[in-house]
Amino acid sequence: MATRIKEILKTGQPSEAVTVQGWVRTKRELKEFTFLEVNDGSSMANLQVILDPALTDYDTVLKTIGTGASVEVSGTLVPSPGKGQNIELKADSVILYGDCPADYPLQKKRHSFEFLRSIAHLRGRTNTLGAVMRVRNACATAIHTFFQERGFLWVHTPIITANDCEGAGELFTVTGLDLTKPADFSQDFFGKRAYLTVSGQLEAEVMAMAFQNVYTFGPTFRAENSNTSRHLAEFWMVEPEMAFCDLEGDRDLAEEFLRYIFRYVLETCAEDMAFFNDRIDNTVIATAENIIHNEFARITYTEAIELLEKADRTFEYPVEWGVDLQSEHERYLAEELFKKPVIVTNYPKSIKAFYMRLDDNDKTVSAMDILAPKIGEIIGGSQREERLDVLIRRIEEQGMNPDDLWWYLDLRRYGSVPHAGFGLGFERLVQFMTGMGNIRDVIPFPRTPLSAEF
Amino acid sequence: MATRIKEILKTGQPSEAVTVQGWVRTKRELKEFTFLEVNDGSSMANLQVILDPALTDYDTVLKTIGTGASVEVSGTLVPSPGKGQNIELKADSVILYGDCPADYPLQKKRHSFEFLRSIAHLRGRTNTLGAVMRVRNACATAIHTFFQERGFLWVHTPIITANDCEGAGELFTVTGLDLTKPADFSQDFFGKRAYLTVSGQLEAEVMAMAFQNVYTFGPTFRAENSNTSRHLAEFWMVEPEMAFCDLEGDRDLAEEFLRYIFRYVLETCAEDMAFFNDRIDNTVIATAENIIHNEFARITYTEAIELLEKADRTFEYPVEWGVDLQSEHERYLAEELFKKPVIVTNYPKSIKAFYMRLDDNDKTVSAMDILAPKIGEIIGGSQREERLDVLIRRIEEQGMNPDDLWWYLDLRRYGSVPHAGFGLGFERLVQFMTGMGNIRDVIPFPRTPLSAEF
Repeated sequence: MATRIKEILKTGQPSEAVTVQGWVRTKRELKEFTFLEVNDGSSMANLQVILDPALTDYDTVLKTIGTGASVEVSGTLVPSPGKGQNIELKADSVILYGDCPADYPLQKKRHSFEFLRSIAHLRGRTNTLGAVMRVRNACATAIHTFFQERGFLWVHTPIITANDCEGAGELFTVTGLDLTKPADFSQDFFGKRAYLTVSGQLEAEVMAMAFQNVYTFGPTFRAENSNTSRHLAEFWMVEPEMAFCDLEGDRDLAEEFLRYIFRYVLETCAEDMAFFNDRIDNTVIATAENIIHNEFARITYTEAIELLEKADRTFEYPVEWGVDLQSEHERYLAEELFKKPVIVTNYPKSIKAFYMRLDDNDKTVSAMDILAPKIGEIIGGSQREERLDVLIRRIEEQGMNPDDLWWYLDLRRYGSVPHAGFGLGFERLVQFMTGMGNIRDVIPFPRTPLSAEF
Repeated sequence: MATRIKEILKTGQPSEAVTVQGWVRTKRELKEFTFLEVNDGSSMANLQVILDPALTDYDTVLKTIGTGASVEVSGTLVPSPGKGQNIELKADSVILYGDCPADYPLQKKRHSFEFLRSIAHLRGRTNTLGAVMRVRNACATAIHTFFQERGFLWVHTPIITANDCEGAGELFTVTGLDLTKPADFSQDFFGKRAYLTVSGQLEAEVMAMAFQNVYTFGPTFRAENSNTSRHLAEFWMVEPEMAFCDLEGDRDLAEEFLRYIFRYVLETCAEDMAFFNDRIDNTVIATAENIIHNEFARITYTEAIELLEKADRTFEYPVEWGVDLQSEHERYLAEELFKKPVIVTNYPKSIKAFYMRLDDNDKTVSAMDILAPKIGEIIGGSQREERLDVLIRRIEEQGMNPDDLWWYLDLRRYGSVPHAGFGLGFERLVQFMTGMGNIRDVIPFPRTPLSAEF
């Protein structure tokens, strides 16, 4: 039974017999020995394997095993005289599972992230993408653990939806029609036009009205033709929804949530995080520590506008009360002014969605966005409008038909309660955590305009 | 700060002051007192609340609070003289958040599951659907915990894919085109025709070739016009994939996995499981115990055919070596002959997918299906073909073009290893666990032909 290399590097003792399975990262032939660096994906660090010429089939092994080959090595752990590791493996036997010809694209040299995207089926074997995927998994685990510990149910809201009330124009159509002629959606699989969801929120509200505290964690979609380092056509979102909760409770939970994830990842992926700090962005550890140990700044939208108007700075997009904050404004607040995440609340109703709770001033809604340094908006949420009459008015004001949302309105007819929630873009979180500059490099198989490879 | 009713019923002590928030299930007015049954979704059981006429606003409260209303009740816990609970709440104050008019569809009476599907936005407030969603969450949590404890990474494989090599004819198309004229997919968002995934397996194999042990847990789709109690157009799948693993290891892991989930759910959802056993299917607890404490039966396909041929039974679909097992065959084996889950291995290559590893006899492949009583196939898996030449031959035999799978073949070119995995239909698991007869009742918002409501 093989042992994972992560465990060996952590707890392996000299003279212990172990077997490891993995892929050769490099081979160095010296006079007395040959060294293999073997990696099995469990950690950034490789296990150094020493091949003694006395080994059966030494010559054959040397000939066939090179970078990229898959091997099983059995032997004995010995103290390592080299730098960078305490222990190494003296091989008694080596099994070659699969060799790796010289045209293997991942020879030992630096590759651009752009090139690695073209071989997304292999890039998980590089240091950076390996670390990204381990941190991504740790973020996901932290999210589930956080909510499950607090009694939230993970609910699976639908991916295919016939609701087009949100995100019009950015929706992908889902169809079973053959499309060789103009589409007649009345003849389609669902009997009407169907789309890929842009958010599970409305359905999460349904579930919160029965189970109090719930969260979604699933894929969402935007058919937005944005070729940027921050946009994906397919990305994962986390959307908690809490009954009997107001904006303040929402804000508190969001902050506690982010803090929990950062602490969890620093604890469980220390090696990978050190790598990101060293090679990708030398602020990521300080940022994580900052989030863990300091409270987020909290301001209203109105205060944010005042701060931006006072800023010694010319913005591309001018600022005045009523406009939506642009990325440059968000980054100024988080990166330069507060130098930490900022929670902005109570935005003008005209720039926010119909379901956000109208404040008593009739001008703002109980919305909140969390702005993070370098990332901009990482969380967006709100208290929801629980008053039936106000909600209907807001829907109509936005030119929509309340009848299309009959079931959503029912939640306000039958035992309505104050409730609130937020959405976290999962890939933005992983970017924020790792410092990776392009969102395409924090998801295994990115979907973007003209690209659905693999 | 409110306490969840589940906690109060478990650990609440007489004379403790508590606040609860939830929805009124029933109200009973007696001469001396009024009783409310309050539920907050955390448990099947309600908390009984006693309203004393001495309470401020007693008359108003009585008038406005009925079935379905949302309330916050503060008071003191007292021992309950009634049957079925140890503790109840004597109210000091009651806040009505939202009333509930008499047309509330969930008045206290039995409702058919079919009717409840038409009000899927409210059905989570019923005993049965409440229990289903809690058990569903527990199954999901067990799945993540099982894999994370074993060092597997959760990987997010793409939902939108341009691979049409699997499930041809059952694929939904995803498009950003306006569809008012015949579709020209070269002008579409991804530059070619794209589909909703039917499985994340091929991409999970990519990730296993870097991280050794991974799993997917995400939505998958079938545009199959099946109006049955076992089919959904959108459902969730779990697909682990293990490098350096053969069929035997795959089979062992699948069995351990199911056992773990059943044990976890019995332990964490005892009340809900007792309800299912009592009201839905009086074999579910025995089935769970059986899975937890007994090994699954293990037979080859060839042995299965022999057993079916010997069966004192006429099957609708005749049996002979080479045919695929039908539901009636699967259920006979699991329900009648073995009376427990059966793992069937080594199916004829002609009825299985191209990626399954060809056995040395050149007739069968290293596939496995786990057949469960009442459900039929609940898990399907295989060792994967890791030999490049054999894989290319198998792809060509099935009339496909190997070039379309260049990246999948690359995994066999560069450090190929024996590997294996399986897929679990998540809703089938929840059905199996709960005994629910219709798969539409174990997912919050079912998607089926002509139905994408909510």
